[in-house]
Amino acid sequence: MIYLDNGATSYPKPAQVLRSTVEALKNFSFNSGRGGYRQSVKAAEKIYQVREKVSGMFSCEPQNIVFTKNCTEALNIAIKGSVKKGSHVIISSLEHNAVWRVVSKLKEQGIIDFDIADFDYDDDVCVSNFESFIRENTDLIVCMTASNVFGVAFPVRRLAALAHRYSVRFIADAAQTAGIMPVGIESDGADIICAPGHKCLYAQMGTGFMASAKNIKLDTLIQGGTGSASLSASQPSEPPERFEAGTLNNSGIISLGAGIDFINNRGMENIYGHEMRLARFLYDGINQSPNTRLYVPRPENGKSAPIIAFNMDGKSSESVAASLAAHDIAVRAGYHCSALAHSFFKTLDTGVVRLCPSVFTTQRDCEVFLNTLKKL
Amino acid sequence: MIYLDNGATSYPKPAQVLRSTVEALKNFSFNSGRGGYRQSVKAAEKIYQVREKVSGMFSCEPQNIVFTKNCTEALNIAIKGSVKKGSHVIISSLEHNAVWRVVSKLKEQGIIDFDIADFDYDDDVCVSNFESFIRENTDLIVCMTASNVFGVAFPVRRLAALAHRYSVRFIADAAQTAGIMPVGIESDGADIICAPGHKCLYAQMGTGFMASAKNIKLDTLIQGGTGSASLSASQPSEPPERFEAGTLNNSGIISLGAGIDFINNRGMENIYGHEMRLARFLYDGINQSPNTRLYVPRPENGKSAPIIAFNMDGKSSESVAASLAAHDIAVRAGYHCSALAHSFFKTLDTGVVRLCPSVFTTQRDCEVFLNTLKKL
Repeated sequence: MIYLDNGATSYPKPAQVLRSTVEALKNFSFNSGRGGYRQSVKAAEKIYQVREKVSGMFSCEPQNIVFTKNCTEALNIAIKGSVKKGSHVIISSLEHNAVWRVVSKLKEQGIIDFDIADFDYDDDVCVSNFESFIRENTDLIVCMTASNVFGVAFPVRRLAALAHRYSVRFIADAAQTAGIMPVGIESDGADIICAPGHKCLYAQMGTGFMASAKNIKLDTLIQGGTGSASLSASQPSEPPERFEAGTLNNSGIISLGAGIDFINNRGMENIYGHEMRLARFLYDGINQSPNTRLYVPRPENGKSAPIIAFNMDGKSSESVAASLAAHDIAVRAGYHCSALAHSFFKTLDTGVVRLCPSVFTTQRDCEVFLNTLKKL
Repeated sequence: MIYLDNGATSYPKPAQVLRSTVEALKNFSFNSGRGGYRQSVKAAEKIYQVREKVSGMFSCEPQNIVFTKNCTEALNIAIKGSVKKGSHVIISSLEHNAVWRVVSKLKEQGIIDFDIADFDYDDDVCVSNFESFIRENTDLIVCMTASNVFGVAFPVRRLAALAHRYSVRFIADAAQTAGIMPVGIESDGADIICAPGHKCLYAQMGTGFMASAKNIKLDTLIQGGTGSASLSASQPSEPPERFEAGTLNNSGIISLGAGIDFINNRGMENIYGHEMRLARFLYDGINQSPNTRLYVPRPENGKSAPIIAFNMDGKSSESVAASLAAHDIAVRAGYHCSALAHSFFKTLDTGVVRLCPSVFTTQRDCEVFLNTLKKL
């Protein structure tokens, strides 16, 4: 199989991620923070080490890393915990349904109102598009680091600075870039970063996290046992326990630590450089193929995630993906859970075919893909 | 290690659970229901097979099995999705914080009010305790199948029948019994059953589910991408997608299928019989030890989960657990995230030491425990 659906989840996982999972199931599958016996304490230490690794990559404090089941849960915690009745929220015109459906639900419940700021290739215009919607009751800006469909990146640091000029909270959805493009709480000024563990961080599926700045106050989405302050009817006041009710996914979290080790060993810049070279190779090849359509400029480092969206004239994106699947090439077609992005790029009728290389994708894989595409 | 903390999470996991996890990471870690390529379709089929296995055990339809990260998330979805402003809720006097903190939060938000019905060993009295709190605006009864601290079981079928006589919804928290004591949607009349995968069902940590009856309408707790109806601002109307936003924990879910296979092969009755024999052996041994205190009658089949709570006079539960840990015996001390249960059994000052055998616990393990206890 030639796997170009790493935007959904990365495959394969690095060998050390598989090894760490098995080790976790055998040696660290004890309820951390609840038991006083050696194995429980060791499991808790192992989980804390992963908090340190994640916080190192996203420049915040370990205790401000909250483990979730996926990026979607992290975004739900972050967004719902940040608003109050009457809040105004701004999101981008390319947001994933994990943001759009959340703010739509909050609006339907009569809690918030929201506006949608258009993406622009010109950072000045993009920032100004967000600024134009800021009003007195704006409490929150939520923006992805890069589009999960078209790859284009947002000027996160400038948007965070804009938000802070108006005392507005800024949440970055780093679903498609965490692990390949640097973004951090302290380094870039985001108040909260949400990310999956199983995409560019190479952990098991079932993993994600919310990283937050110090002193960020959030209401809780889920309540339950935390192994602490057990006699209280309320969640503890401090992260991570405040947001981690119930038993954690130890093996998933430990695999995330192994994924981060893998990235740190290879070098995030090297991985990104490799994937972007392949992305440009794919882009150029598609551009030169007959009857193809691309939607955004050639991906440049720093301005895009390694994601290519295209269509073939006269064919549905699904039929192109099905033809590729018949040649054992795995890509995803359709809407990619991103109605807004398709509305913005006028691909609501067709969806798009999406290609996402990973560190394990080779030039040869991309050549096979392009040769196959030409014969469709 | 002698592991008697299976009430926190079961250890070890059966060999087939470990094998299935590794197989899942290698062969089924693709985004199910999102891709059209063979591997994605196969992953989706594998996930569906687990829905069938879970629904077989809990007597409902496969599409009404919603996979969650733990039992706590399932309870949050079920409880919050069931109430509206002005609802009245009844919970038991032994509920875990995963229920108590949820209803306390809803009360604090001004959405619901709730009452606490006392447990009783006499089923007639117990049912009548719940009935006495039912009023016109009672929309929900939430009750555990058995106490996670003291093991005593509730008459779930009768409580479900009571609820339905008053057109009230009934949610069963099967955290400590799912996999050892039968409970089902169609067989017992519960509207919703919530359970963890990683306790008596022997799956990885990071797993849980909500099983529900047909036509149960629930609001959503988490919104996001579902791989379906992507152009809609709302979650799909039907389970499981409605409640499964974001990427699923494929390897965790597949390990749950392996755990259920393991139980079905051994026979749930045989496993329960084994664990209850050990529970009674532990109970009798503790009862005969000097300076010990037990809180509930000797556990009888059908009236209790295989859980023993005790204390030693003049020692904190934590110090007893620490002494046992020094002998490589793993038990849990303290409150077990269950303030209500400690209030009911008057153990708020001390907490308790809790013992939970599993299918892998041997008579010899229990003998070593009892011999060690006598020397403390």
